This record gives sequence, C-alpha cells and structure tokens, in this order.
Amino acid sequence: MTPFPPEPLEPIHDERLFRQLRFLVEIDRLKGVLRRTYLVGAERLENSAEHSWHLAVACMVLAEHADEPVDILRALKMVLVHDLVEIDAGDTYAYDPAAHVDKAEREQRAAERIFGLLPEEQAQEFHALWREFEARKTPEARFANALDRLIPLLHSIHTGGRSWRQGQVVRSQVARRLAPIREVSTALGEAAEALLRWAVDQGLLPDDTAQGPTHPCPDEGPHPSMAAPPKPTPPSG
Amino acid sequence: MTPFPPEPLEPIHDERLFRQLRFLVEIDRLKGVLRRTYLVGAERLENSAEHSWHLAVACMVLAEHADEPVDILRALKMVLVHDLVEIDAGDTYAYDPAAHVDKAEREQRAAERIFGLLPEEQAQEFHALWREFEARKTPEARFANALDRLIPLLHSIHTGGRSWRQGQVVRSQVARRLAPIREVSTALGEAAEALLRWAVDQGLLPDDTAQGPTHPCPDEGPHPSMAAPPKPTPPSG
Repeated sequence: MTPFPPEPLEPIHDERLFRQLRFLVEIDRLKGVLRRTYLVGAERLENSAEHSWHLAVACMVLAEHADEPVDILRALKMVLVHDLVEIDAGDTYAYDPAAHVDKAEREQRAAERIFGLLPEEQAQEFHALWREFEARKTPEARFANALDRLIPLLHSIHTGGRSWRQGQVVRSQVARRLAPIREVSTALGEAAEALLRWAVDQGLLPDDTAQGPTHPCPDEGPHPSMAAPPKPTPPSG
Repeated sequence: MTPFPPEPLEPIHDERLFRQLRFLVEIDRLKGVLRRTYLVGAERLENSAEHSWHLAVACMVLAEHADEPVDILRALKMVLVHDLVEIDAGDTYAYDPAAHVDKAEREQRAAERIFGLLPEEQAQEFHALWREFEARKTPEARFANALDRLIPLLHSIHTGGRSWRQGQVVRSQVARRLAPIREVSTALGEAAEALLRWAVDQGLLPDDTAQGPTHPCPDEGPHPSMAAPPKPTPPSG
C-alpha cells in the first residue's frame, strides 16, 4: 500500500541506511535557521548551516594558532554538528532572558530527537560531540568555541557593526564574548582584541568602558560596568 | 594615514594571520553562490556554502559505506573547499554548453586567486585538495564526488522533482549522473538507483529509456538514448 503522502525514502529497505538518509534529509532544515549575523556584502542574515561550514574552514585555516595541540578531525566534526539542535530549539537570542530560562532543556530535547534519527551508536557519537562542544573542556571544544566567537567578529567589522547596533550591544559585552579566545590562542586572542579596539575607534560600537581597561581580562571576573545587573553575552562577536 | 574605505583587518600586523583572516572574509561570498537545487520544505535555492556543509556531515554519516577505506579527515577537507572556485567562476550550469567551453580555465583562474589569498604553503594545500577532488582518482575524492551526486538526489525526490522539471532533465541523464556512486559504494549505488526508479514511478522524472535498461552501466559507455548528440550531465542528482 502506497503511503500518502509518499515517503521518498520508502525504497530503502536497509534500516540503518534508511535512518542515515532520513537524518541527512532532516538536517536540511538547519539552512532555514537564521542567526543575528549579516553576511559580508549581502543584505541578508546568515543561517546556521552556512555558518557551520565557515567555522569548519576556519578550523582548517587557523588550527596552527591553537596554543595546545588540536585534533583537527575531532574539531571539524564538532563544528559541523554543533548547531544541529537549533533545528528544533532555534538560535536563542542571548539578550532574551526569558528564552534562556529553558534553553538547556530545549536543546537537550532537540539533541535527543535529531541525533536519535541516526542508528544507535552514531546517535551516541553525534550527541557526545555536541555535549563536548557545549562543555568547552577539551582543547578541541575550546578551540571550536573560540572560532565560534572570532568569525562573527569578522562579520561585524565588515558590515559596519550592523548586528551590534540592532542588538544595542556595547564594547564590554563584546569584550566578554571574545575573552575566551585568548585562553585558547594568544595570537587569535590578541587579534580579536585589536579588531575590537579598531571597531570602537571607528565608532561601530559604543564604548561603555569609559577610562577602563582596553581589554578586560577574563580572570578578573566581569568588568565593573557589567557588575550589576549582569547582562547576558551577545550571540555573536 | 587611514585608508578609505577603512580596511577592518588593518590592525592585524602579522602578515600570515592577516592573509588567513582575509581569506576567511573573502570566502563568505560562497554563501551567495546559488545552485539549481531547492531546499527541502523551503522555497529557495540552495547556496554552495550550505551545500558544502551538508556534504561534510554526509561524509561523517556515510563513510562506513565506502567499499574502499576512506580517510575521513582528507575527505572532509576536500568537500569543505571543493566549491570555493565558484566564488569567481560561478556554479556552471551543465546544460549550458557555451559555459562549459571555458569552465576549466575559469575555475583554474579562480583557484589561483582565491587560494592565493592564503599563506603560500596553505594556498598549495588547498589548491591540491581542490585538484584532488576534481581528478576523482583517490578513494577520498571518489567518495566525496559520490556524495556530491547522492545528496542532491535526496533534495530532488523530496521537492517533487522541481529542479529536474526546470532543467527538463530525463531519466537517462540522472542515471548517468548517479552511475559513479556504485563504483565507490555498492550500498549507496543501489540506494541511488532504487530512489531513481521510485522517482520515475512517481512521475517526477520522464522516462526516456523506454524498454531500455533500468540503470545503465557506466562501463558500457553512454546509454543508447544518449548516443547522438551527447547531452551534458545535469548539475545535480
């Protein structure tokens, strides 16, 4: 009996391959999840699939700058799957405290459903890669997270700070967002701080730090201007 | 003296890192290169950056089906960079014979300019990965090429054959496009052929093979219906 509507993967009788192809069709939806970042030289927002590709290439290009050795295959796999939960959970806007209340729970549910489409042991592998990225403990996860902060900074400075303006973001927030880059790579951390100073000098970003330090050290805790009430970090650099 | 317009990467004084970041900004343009494939459940065409991401995840998921062992890191790197030349050369439509006349030359020029933005030895590495993909000789290149044919087939059958109709594509053309998949993976080759038969049965694709073979073998040369004049292969499965 032909199901209605017809299931295009119906002819695949090998259950393992069916699940793998079903997963690959499902993740097409990540191309429809919009971020807050504007593309360079284009009028539209970036989606999470093309962002994941950009991070992966950045990983290939910039791995040499990691202060600790990084297993590139592991880092690549992590950035390729790190945003898949957004298919269900969406790209949570960091300035929306209400959305943050249940973010972890929503993303956990999404991970279970989406990775659960795969055959059992692949589901576990993908789920573990996502958890590793989120936990930011291994050198690969820390490096991948650093790139996830650095690349959107490149977008912001090349689009006149448009997403910063729309999010009413100020210097100290971006500085806090970028701070973990230096923990992973001195070279990339210094570059990020130099680009942030340039952005402030060019007027792309309001300077709320007054005569404060040019680049707050993450080890000192939140910058004084951030002390009370604490502001969530921006979604992109 | 401040250049006009200001160069956002100006603060990066390390030439190597400057070139790497400059490259990463330049490749953002791949997100604006449109393919002929429609997204599943969306009204728009796919771009080459999100396509590259999709292939990379497919590589992670389906590598086990390669009949010859595949170095996944090498295959991932290849799919991540395989379309970068399209930033300059565009996504050449396979049905446009005029565009094919100078395709190789245009893509070679594009590769030189785009990879040439990177520091010398990275430029060589990326250029070599692209050439390896195009040559389809190593197991990794053959596997990556097979996925580049299989994944668009998933799109076509999940979008009612829309891109096939727009390109006036017929069964024998798709069969030829899919044939190399079986040379790399028996399982994926059989799956592709089963999906193609399903598409024809559902009326998504005209059957020009009459009583001809259901899946022409590439070793037999062009299918009789393709003999004269030769038709170019479609750009997507």
